[in-house]
Amino acid sequence: MIEQAETLPLGASMPWPEVLAALPFNADGLLPAIAQQYDSGEVLMLAWMNRDALTETLTTGRVCYWSRSRERLWRKGETSGHWQSLKELRLDCDGDTLLLLVDQTGPACHTRRPSCFYNAVRGDRVEVIAAPVPVHPA
Amino acid sequence: MIEQAETLPLGASMPWPEVLAALPFNADGLLPAIAQQYDSGEVLMLAWMNRDALTETLTTGRVCYWSRSRERLWRKGETSGHWQSLKELRLDCDGDTLLLLVDQTGPACHTRRPSCFYNAVRGDRVEVIAAPVPVHPA
Repeated sequence: MIEQAETLPLGASMPWPEVLAALPFNADGLLPAIAQQYDSGEVLMLAWMNRDALTETLTTGRVCYWSRSRERLWRKGETSGHWQSLKELRLDCDGDTLLLLVDQTGPACHTRRPSCFYNAVRGDRVEVIAAPVPVHPA
Repeated sequence: MIEQAETLPLGASMPWPEVLAALPFNADGLLPAIAQQYDSGEVLMLAWMNRDALTETLTTGRVCYWSRSRERLWRKGETSGHWQSLKELRLDCDGDTLLLLVDQTGPACHTRRPSCFYNAVRGDRVEVIAAPVPVHPA
């Protein structure tokens, strides 16, 4: 249904409940969700959301994913304290990917790096391009 | 194998061929790849890469995905002319997502919008927040 937005002019809108009902969740009931720091533009991580995680995130304003390894809702920061406050949720042209503009508390990555994307391919090597954030910054 | 980078210091590196051989491609042999405009930070799209697409992208410097609908390599821009020149390829902490820093020629989206993420959830509506780029800009 979101594909119908393709021909809508800037500022036009569609009812979210109807779009949500028609989103193309994959065979596991999930959509990939990219988290991006809303002000710096840094891409922080990619995780997955089912319908419940998506609805909880929009309702509470705190980002909740679906953990594929633990097979349960994963309220990002529930153990680390490194929450993501939702600034805006966007959908792509065919509705099969979510973009979350967030305000990240602390490092996004479990390695304590600001972003999970800290490995860069350079020539025939993969280089570590970010260091963990100290636990007690000076 | 890329998880071993977690404990490496800034600037340390690992051999790319060994990392590539051990990447956790999904059951369809694919990894999600986020394309981000390298200078503005705008997230452009999410697509998928198999091993061949990933290798071709790194070899040629032009981004090549795997089209799940057409079930073949998809050299982004091959019909539209809207190529993506690769600036850097990054991997996340567990190697199951790729981040492509690119220089996008023309609009990234097939709708001629600069990014595919032009739908924003605002209250109980989904709003179109970007307009197509004119075919012949003034």
